[in-house]
Amino acid sequence: MPAYKIDHIGVAVASIDGALSAYAALGLHPVHREEVAGQRVRTAFLPVGSSSIELLEPTSEDSPVAKFLAKRGGGVHHICFAVEDIDATLRHLAGLGFRLIHPSPVPGSRGKRVAFLHPESADGVLIELSQETPEGRP
Amino acid sequence: MPAYKIDHIGVAVASIDGALSAYAALGLHPVHREEVAGQRVRTAFLPVGSSSIELLEPTSEDSPVAKFLAKRGGGVHHICFAVEDIDATLRHLAGLGFRLIHPSPVPGSRGKRVAFLHPESADGVLIELSQETPEGRP
Repeated sequence: MPAYKIDHIGVAVASIDGALSAYAALGLHPVHREEVAGQRVRTAFLPVGSSSIELLEPTSEDSPVAKFLAKRGGGVHHICFAVEDIDATLRHLAGLGFRLIHPSPVPGSRGKRVAFLHPESADGVLIELSQETPEGRP
Repeated sequence: MPAYKIDHIGVAVASIDGALSAYAALGLHPVHREEVAGQRVRTAFLPVGSSSIELLEPTSEDSPVAKFLAKRGGGVHHICFAVEDIDATLRHLAGLGFRLIHPSPVPGSRGKRVAFLHPESADGVLIELSQETPEGRP
């Protein structure tokens, strides 16, 4: 069950509206905005090719993204790979000894099922996996 | 001249060979390796969909990637967007006040013409632009 594309790159920003002009200069514009209450972030998706840039703005000081910003400032927060079968992929990774933040998928933005792997398992990179759902709006 | 896809995501690692197993678990495998003398790095490209993960391993202690690793450990180093006309894009960005690390394109890996924007211009994200060339091996 290989990853078949980069679904999106999550970028932590202090302010989505403040960050949009840099991406607009490259021809990237938001098509979808959503607040993900569980992660205490507002998000905006800027499509590019078959992927997107996901801008992440914290909605509270105890948001993981707020802590990331306080520690190192704005920058790439995670890479999300699309997979066909997230349950099988998580079982496969657990069997290989990967540390999983979410052993089972949780609801993500755009109606997808998602799970994060621990960055210790991928040389410091926070990796998200996502699977489209019939209700998803890709 | 909008960016038309994520060409690759550059990931700084202490050792390419040490990092490969995590990506192999996701079905990603290297198809191209190259040393970029100007950046003092070895690279390996792992295709995924229409993009790639580029693993970057420093070849000397004064490599920018070595400094990145010393400062924050392994992680995402840059995002590279593919553009059709890199010269026109750089002129456009310079006109908007972007700080450019390379005001003109330089030779990149896989025979491409590339240029980096200063992360100050993109909320802390190091952005690379790349343009295919007729000699390129995409």
